Amino acid sequence: MAQLQRIAIAPSQLQQGQILLTPQQQHYLGQVLRLGDGSRFIAIDGKGKWWLAQLEKSQAQVLEPLEVQTELPASITLILALPKGNGFDEVVRCCTELGVAVIAPVVSGRTLLNPSPQKLERWRRIAQEAAEQSERSIVPTILEPVSFITSLSTVTNQRYICEARGDFPHLLDCLDDKELLTNNTGQITIAIGPEGGWTEKEVECARASGFQPVSLGSRILRAVTAPIVALSIVVAKLESTSVGA
Amino acid sequence: MAQLQRIAIAPSQLQQGQILLTPQQQHYLGQVLRLGDGSRFIAIDGKGKWWLAQLEKSQAQVLEPLEVQTELPASITLILALPKGNGFDEVVRCCTELGVAVIAPVVSGRTLLNPSPQKLERWRRIAQEAAEQSERSIVPTILEPVSFITSLSTVTNQRYICEARGDFPHLLDCLDDKELLTNNTGQITIAIGPEGGWTEKEVECARASGFQPVSLGSRILRAVTAPIVALSIVVAKLESTSVGA
Repeated sequence: MAQLQRIAIAPSQLQQGQILLTPQQQHYLGQVLRLGDGSRFIAIDGKGKWWLAQLEKSQAQVLEPLEVQTELPASITLILALPKGNGFDEVVRCCTELGVAVIAPVVSGRTLLNPSPQKLERWRRIAQEAAEQSERSIVPTILEPVSFITSLSTVTNQRYICEARGDFPHLLDCLDDKELLTNNTGQITIAIGPEGGWTEKEVECARASGFQPVSLGSRILRAVTAPIVALSIVVAKLESTSVGA
Repeated sequence: MAQLQRIAIAPSQLQQGQILLTPQQQHYLGQVLRLGDGSRFIAIDGKGKWWLAQLEKSQAQVLEPLEVQTELPASITLILALPKGNGFDEVVRCCTELGVAVIAPVVSGRTLLNPSPQKLERWRRIAQEAAEQSERSIVPTILEPVSFITSLSTVTNQRYICEARGDFPHLLDCLDDKELLTNNTGQITIAIGPEGGWTEKEVECARASGFQPVSLGSRILRAVTAPIVALSIVVAKLESTSVGA
């Protein structure tokens, strides 16, 4: 089962046990993957449901719903200052693979560019592709970019802000705290700065909003590496048996 | 001090308190960074030594040696099956930032291409650049590519092989074991497979050579993401206060 191809569908495509494939999906399954009549694949709705499906001419028949468990026991939101260039594409891809629930791109004091609406569409497409490839049942939500200060007010759960300079405790040590993992609703927010880091004012605002400053280690990570590292640490903690131990 | 530019020099460039800059370094410092006479920078020899230096005309004067601690308390070797395309460039860059000591590229059963000698030179250049940018004092060693089976015989310390499929313990749980972190010479080897994973025979050979199969979580990671995730976990464990606790 694990080797079957995954295709994300919209809920409206599923009607009376049939999946109404879009022309793009028909092309992808038939021409790109060269699947013929009777070939099986997995349809996922991006909201946690999977179905085993079988191609029949240019449409597909649902054979059975599938039980999957590839999602994390907690919902992780990443607040990410937009890095320069196309680096954000790779960040969205890797963080989706790692299990992020929400990515909140923000414009900070040291962000070099404002993203175009096309970029947002592009990131959402990448998140969908990466969710399929990594066999996730949920496609992460990519929010509209807002200012960093605005993003602080929209989150109300346990929160960390990663700082490259300064003597802060390691993220893994903070997550080691039983309180943090058990006495909450399973929501974690992590903010990662741009090239050049957060401004002092931004760190102060985050602290005032309840974010705890943490370190990701002794070396200076690029803005595109830091979110992957931070997420790797949180996810490993959640998926290892040491959670809450 | 942390904001000064870092330049990697060869030991032979340091003579009687002077750094004999190469034409490329002169160009970089003078034309690219626009540093003038009297400007300070940090020279690193890629083997753990740092010096505070000052530009004087087209050469540099050593002012004082610097104490730095950006290296990990353990030496980490990554055995990496070569992924397709240019993905390895980014892996070398990220893993250098994260503190890897040795990268051993290997050709496995499912590796799609053999690297050219130019590639190896390119990876070594990337490792040097990334070591400078991430403020490391050591430039990681990139070994000549060998077959996976050959790479198994060259390592003699605690070893893990990451497997995407199968019911293996999580890497973070294995590192939790006190024995693993205290009763060794501080050397850890982690093997990461190519797109499509290791072959069964490869996993068997690795097991026979003393590698413990481990999981990086419930989702399927790309070959370029997995090494960064594995390294993030080991490094966080080494740099947090929970080491050996």
